[in-house]
Amino acid sequence: MAKLHHFVLDPYSRRIRLSLAEKGQPVALVDERPWAPSRVLLDHNPSGLLPVLLEESGAAICGVEALGEYLEEQGEGRPLLPGNAIARAEIRRLVAWFDVKFYTEVSEPLLTEKVVKRFMPGSAAPDMARVRASLQRLKPHLDYVAWLAEQRSWLAGEELSLADLAAAAHISALDYLGDVNWSENLVAKSWYQRIKSRPAFRALLGDSVPGMAPSASYADLDF
Amino acid sequence: MAKLHHFVLDPYSRRIRLSLAEKGQPVALVDERPWAPSRVLLDHNPSGLLPVLLEESGAAICGVEALGEYLEEQGEGRPLLPGNAIARAEIRRLVAWFDVKFYTEVSEPLLTEKVVKRFMPGSAAPDMARVRASLQRLKPHLDYVAWLAEQRSWLAGEELSLADLAAAAHISALDYLGDVNWSENLVAKSWYQRIKSRPAFRALLGDSVPGMAPSASYADLDF
Repeated sequence: MAKLHHFVLDPYSRRIRLSLAEKGQPVALVDERPWAPSRVLLDHNPSGLLPVLLEESGAAICGVEALGEYLEEQGEGRPLLPGNAIARAEIRRLVAWFDVKFYTEVSEPLLTEKVVKRFMPGSAAPDMARVRASLQRLKPHLDYVAWLAEQRSWLAGEELSLADLAAAAHISALDYLGDVNWSENLVAKSWYQRIKSRPAFRALLGDSVPGMAPSASYADLDF
Repeated sequence: MAKLHHFVLDPYSRRIRLSLAEKGQPVALVDERPWAPSRVLLDHNPSGLLPVLLEESGAAICGVEALGEYLEEQGEGRPLLPGNAIARAEIRRLVAWFDVKFYTEVSEPLLTEKVVKRFMPGSAAPDMARVRASLQRLKPHLDYVAWLAEQRSWLAGEELSLADLAAAAHISALDYLGDVNWSENLVAKSWYQRIKSRPAFRALLGDSVPGMAPSASYADLDF
């Protein structure tokens, strides 16, 4: 079986786990800590970035960008870049929205301050001003999710796509930390409820980081 | 003719200009300032991120990730993701190396401190400690370019690919600023000399930012 080197709260690892599950492709998970990548990970991906898929053939597919396209090119299971070239470009625009803009403004600061600094030896105390600023920046992103979800069945169009998985991957990592105030945005909540209820999401809802329990409603489908 | 909204020193805009030129596809350039995106840009890409291609049909293809794949899917001109699925994954791994890791560690801090702060009204003075730290981080990246160029004809394999264009896009923006000390790494220099001499590079060598002349050797093929 193929192996996926991942970290439970890494949004990019989460997206690829969701993609594999939506496509019905089983994988063995290998835990990594992003602040102390294993020798095996660095040998395959010198950047140390997650996730990395090791195929049974020995081939290594490194990074969320390469993996998202690679799994699609394999042509097995549900297509996650459905539609024509323009529709696919819209999906990729939104994936970049979450993987670049949302990550820079929200996920990276929250995960660095709350998770990495907790576990990485010799870290400074969390910068609470940075945490508060990131939480402020989460609100307009949830508004954008709601705006998209009101126009379309799913974020990029009429079908579930990588755009939904990218958004859910980032947002679910913050939801694990208890940082999403769902009562503030019921349209975004309803989109998240739909994606959280999918069978492909189930494994993520069982996740736990040793020493850091998930928020009370993290695994609750009726949150 | 299609229009490309771009900024001369934005590495992502530069990569797409190079891609279009390698594929032999003419485009009209529309200048943008990343710190003050135009109304047209924001209407098409609310993230304000560059580049954005406006097709004659009215379709907008937004962002370097979507554009790199879209131009390839059109199937016209030189393929820039050549090879089988594993070879393509290697190209995309290296594109992410430059677009994510190199950008975070080197391009973003240098361009923010030296360019954005120079032109954006109300900016603080450049943070010279940040500039120096980024220049230090450039060295191992040039070593990595040299290591790849020693094993292979081009960075990702035997053919020119998006990986070379991504690397050259970032490095050429720094070269404009005079921030690449080529005498320190002759193997990386020889790779850059090869790509800089390609006809597709010519338009970039004529670039200039008003009020900020390029370094003396920027346009020199015999630097």
